[in-house]
Amino acid sequence: MHDFMRGLFPVCRSITGDGNRETLHRIRQWIPLELHEVPSGTPVLDWTVPKEWNVQDAYIKDASGRRVVDFQASNLHLVSYSVPFRGTMPLTELRQHLFTLPERPDWIPYRTSYYEEMWGFCLADRELRLLDEGTYEVCVDTSMKDGHLTLGEYLLEGKIEDEVLISTHICHPSLANDNLSGIAVATWLAGYLARRRDRRFSYRFLFIPGTIGSITWLALNQQKTDAIKHGLTVSCLGDRGPFTYKRSRRGDAEIDRAAGQVLHHSGFDHEVVNFSPYGYDERQYCSPGFNLPVGSISRTAHGRYREYHTSADDLELVTPQALGESLSVALSIVDLLEGNETYANTNPRGEPQLGRRGLYPSVGGKDLEVEQLAILWVLNLSDASHSLLDIAEVSGLAFPLLRRAADRLLRHGLLEGLPDRRRAFGDADELSRPEVDVE
Amino acid sequence: MHDFMRGLFPVCRSITGDGNRETLHRIRQWIPLELHEVPSGTPVLDWTVPKEWNVQDAYIKDASGRRVVDFQASNLHLVSYSVPFRGTMPLTELRQHLFTLPERPDWIPYRTSYYEEMWGFCLADRELRLLDEGTYEVCVDTSMKDGHLTLGEYLLEGKIEDEVLISTHICHPSLANDNLSGIAVATWLAGYLARRRDRRFSYRFLFIPGTIGSITWLALNQQKTDAIKHGLTVSCLGDRGPFTYKRSRRGDAEIDRAAGQVLHHSGFDHEVVNFSPYGYDERQYCSPGFNLPVGSISRTAHGRYREYHTSADDLELVTPQALGESLSVALSIVDLLEGNETYANTNPRGEPQLGRRGLYPSVGGKDLEVEQLAILWVLNLSDASHSLLDIAEVSGLAFPLLRRAADRLLRHGLLEGLPDRRRAFGDADELSRPEVDVE
Amino acid sequence: MHDFMRGLFPVCRSITGDGNRETLHRIRQWIPLELHEVPSGTPVLDWTVPKEWNVQDAYIKDASGRRVVDFQASNLHLVSYSVPFRGTMPLTELRQHLFTLPERPDWIPYRTSYYEEMWGFCLADRELRLLDEGTYEVCVDTSMKDGHLTLGEYLLEGKIEDEVLISTHICHPSLANDNLSGIAVATWLAGYLARRRDRRFSYRFLFIPGTIGSITWLALNQQKTDAIKHGLTVSCLGDRGPFTYKRSRRGDAEIDRAAGQVLHHSGFDHEVVNFSPYGYDERQYCSPGFNLPVGSISRTAHGRYREYHTSADDLELVTPQALGESLSVALSIVDLLEGNETYANTNPRGEPQLGRRGLYPSVGGKDLEVEQLAILWVLNLSDASHSLLDIAEVSGLAFPLLRRAADRLLRHGLLEGLPDRRRAFGDADELSRPEVDVE
Repeated sequence: MHDFMRGLFPVCRSITGDGNRETLHRIRQWIPLELHEVPSGTPVLDWTVPKEWNVQDAYIKDASGRRVVDFQASNLHLVSYSVPFRGTMPLTELRQHLFTLPERPDWIPYRTSYYEEMWGFCLADRELRLLDEGTYEVCVDTSMKDGHLTLGEYLLEGKIEDEVLISTHICHPSLANDNLSGIAVATWLAGYLARRRDRRFSYRFLFIPGTIGSITWLALNQQKTDAIKHGLTVSCLGDRGPFTYKRSRRGDAEIDRAAGQVLHHSGFDHEVVNFSPYGYDERQYCSPGFNLPVGSISRTAHGRYREYHTSADDLELVTPQALGESLSVALSIVDLLEGNETYANTNPRGEPQLGRRGLYPSVGGKDLEVEQLAILWVLNLSDASHSLLDIAEVSGLAFPLLRRAADRLLRHGLLEGLPDRRRAFGDADELSRPEVDVE
Repeated sequence: MHDFMRGLFPVCRSITGDGNRETLHRIRQWIPLELHEVPSGTPVLDWTVPKEWNVQDAYIKDASGRRVVDFQASNLHLVSYSVPFRGTMPLTELRQHLFTLPERPDWIPYRTSYYEEMWGFCLADRELRLLDEGTYEVCVDTSMKDGHLTLGEYLLEGKIEDEVLISTHICHPSLANDNLSGIAVATWLAGYLARRRDRRFSYRFLFIPGTIGSITWLALNQQKTDAIKHGLTVSCLGDRGPFTYKRSRRGDAEIDRAAGQVLHHSGFDHEVVNFSPYGYDERQYCSPGFNLPVGSISRTAHGRYREYHTSADDLELVTPQALGESLSVALSIVDLLEGNETYANTNPRGEPQLGRRGLYPSVGGKDLEVEQLAILWVLNLSDASHSLLDIAEVSGLAFPLLRRAADRLLRHGLLEGLPDRRRAFGDADELSRPEVDVE
Repeated sequence: MHDFMRGLFPVCRSITGDGNRETLHRIRQWIPLELHEVPSGTPVLDWTVPKEWNVQDAYIKDASGRRVVDFQASNLHLVSYSVPFRGTMPLTELRQHLFTLPERPDWIPYRTSYYEEMWGFCLADRELRLLDEGTYEVCVDTSMKDGHLTLGEYLLEGKIEDEVLISTHICHPSLANDNLSGIAVATWLAGYLARRRDRRFSYRFLFIPGTIGSITWLALNQQKTDAIKHGLTVSCLGDRGPFTYKRSRRGDAEIDRAAGQVLHHSGFDHEVVNFSPYGYDERQYCSPGFNLPVGSISRTAHGRYREYHTSADDLELVTPQALGESLSVALSIVDLLEGNETYANTNPRGEPQLGRRGLYPSVGGKDLEVEQLAILWVLNLSDASHSLLDIAEVSGLAFPLLRRAADRLLRHGLLEGLPDRRRAFGDADELSRPEVDVE
């Protein structure tokens, strides 16, 4: 994953443009992403797809002709969506177009101006202080034309139509943790799921520019949102900080409980926080009109690490180990969703005799082992109203232990599945309605 | 407020009598209070309005004719509702009628005997110890006759008939914190609200003797209690102690949450405690047959300061600053109730584009300011089921910030109000019922 | 109780056999227990009543003919339900049949093999280490024949058919805390209740072997389980550890709240823990098909004291004082269940005038005493929906105080009972059903 990110790092991404297309093509080398090109000017919910922005070159030259700020050196130097400009001006006038971080004098900040026409440059404050009061030549050789916004989408069909949405933003230029790390983890997660033949859920992966990307996808796919039963936005997954799971707006959706359960038993430092309407694309998925059960997983949360949105968010900040841990947490969450079924104990009155089935120690008197405890918990709470995740929460035992216990009990006929029966009930219900009407 | 209390301090108040009338007349110099005179003997719920009690004079003279205990010096010296008595007796016999506080030898206690016929005097324990064993002349020149119980009431009509009840007791003689402070804060609050033209709620102020006053008002106004949607008893608001809010019997009424929210963000030390059926007139308002949403606000809670119900509860205990803070807290609670509306986001699918409306920073990349966060919270939770108070509780942001955000969003058409629509629905419902009957 | 336990201690109990019969006969000297003999082979839920097991003798002799392990010395030496065996073998082969506790070298462990045919001996690890590598003679002179499983049952009828179940296991041989202590406390509790004439509930006491005993009783009495409204398994009640109450599977059953309330006000160290499907017969009563409101009371919880299931769980571990405390806690729980009624305040609007009824101090001005506070709480919350236990939980006052307050208020006609009215409603319901059928 870290190598993959290294290749993507220099590409100049924004909310539109060729850098985004190149990014999506590189992802396509791993998973068969579909690309959607949405024309500028398309109305999407309360928004409009903007013009497409591309950069040929951008710099500031001093009186001697030396490039003192140079887009070629780092794409962070140019404020994203800067309009074309050419001119000469004294430093005092130029300053109104320059952004620095005086409290971090060596770092270049990352700034954007998607929806207001302006141009600007970002640079290290230490560099700014070296500039003398002379006259400077400014060149912003960008284009802002009718074009397209590009979305990447990958649907992995499962046994049922219910979907898990995995969404990550692709609009940041040379920043590693935010959000090449999210792109990498989402790509690897998709690769893993593609190889898993027994998928219950369908999985929809979105690689999209932040905000306008999810707005656009939601606008064009409103009828598909009903199928989304669980979802995650993935971002900032490469730093060494503790994990952060931000709950969906619902607060107690199955994804919220699944992520909390996985992190609780993961052994990793972590924090689970309530939804807030600020962050990444969960803002749109969790807007009140959609209110999808979409949470957000990251290491150090959005905006909480000091390198955030600066040139210090580079490939050094991100480690292969942190990426690996993040992928493993994401896989465990998916495994939990896949395995979280609700059963009925076929012998609900009293405990079944486990000993004669080899599920209980033959010599009594000693304390049970945790595998046997897990069997007792699954039997006791499998009353057609507790899912295995419910049982994990009540018992304090880890989900995989309960999943294995359920599998052993199923093999012995001591549990029976409900999901199909429920659907059968549902079908019967549907079928019987006309009879009522006839009467 | 402190000057106003100074004027009221020497007046001999009880549950009936001319001292109460004088107190109400002095309040009338500030707000146009209505006075109700309820005749002795009137049955009120399980009680009966008592005879009216007035004091001409009361003293104990020693053998030399010196007044050793003198009502003229402090009205606390006479047990309230002492029956008339004249006689001479040795100290041993007299002692049965004397009340002191041995643990606070310089303070005169405050005692009452409203519903059992007796007479008694209260004095400092140090004074009692100076009395020799001789014979004493006792004079209790009081009258206890059919008369009236006097209630003060002030109704400020608002746009809607729903009422906020503010109730304070006026039955204590020369005690400052309990409860001239409550009288002063209630009077000033009424004055403020009378000048506020845009009142949504109607406000009903009651200045009444404790227990029998609220029992009497409730008995005579049972049909009016349905309109009371929020209420506060106000008392002990002049000492320097931390604020105490005691919840209504309901525990989660809007007034309970409003008071908790205001105190939480007030910066003042405070405690929020659950309802208990002991205290002031909230005991009656929150009796199970009424169960009104009436909480109770004070500084140091009822009975918890050592000067409570003694001569040390004087004008020194009460400070202008504490009174001012109390008034400001009361005003903030009222402002919250007035401003606590529920809205619907008119663009519930995705976030509306705030930038083009000047509600969002044009240059992206930096963290939001709290005013912008407030806008995002109001938009996200305004789904016709969360009030602004709900949003304050969920977001942790202060109510006034959210109120301002809602006002900005309303001006931009991004929110729409619900209260009127709801009433309209209600009306339609009323109208359609006859049709059902016809059928 | 301790003397009673001393008599029972040497008896060789198991899940069947004459030792159990003797145990039940000894209990019968105190309470008129009914004995049920259930034949081997009877199918009971998912189980089968096992053959009856009795021991004549069992030992291991060394080459010199000395009994190095001897059932006569302690019945713990023989694994319970060991099948008959006679033979000679070297130590290496014998070792597979020997159980010790290397970490507690002086204690004999307690082991069973009810449902797998084997034989074995338990001994102190220190003794095992003294055995030389010679040849040993083994004698397991047991019988395993069709016979019976013996249950002890005692039903104390009350005014209503609703039952409280008290269940304790009797299958452990010479172990004192687990569970002669439970047998003793249950027997004394039954004796007390038998003398109490005003019992509201019926009480059903079960003295049964663990697991198979409750399975058997439940199988044969499924129709009786509906009447069980509260229940406790009692065990491990003689050690000096803190009390442990384990909630029923329901978690908030009245018995759970009653036990929590009693322990909270008991002054004893205690812990209240959630249900888990491991422990004693509550495992069966709380299986999902029954889900009875049965909790579990003990001192140090099941398996948590180091002497558990070893020869160190002897009569020294158990003290008369601990047994007495346990009985008093059990009695308090029963008293609470008996007295926990729901009332309606007959004067719900405002407080009734308590002073004229002698329920309130005549001289006002001082703080109330707790008895008067209890009266105010009962009046305030007796709205036909709060039981006295509810009021205890809300007010923080101890249940007996509220029970006494309710009794005083009932005598003054200020409360009226609801339970009978409810039953009357219930009856009416029953009566009206046929009319519906006729139609």
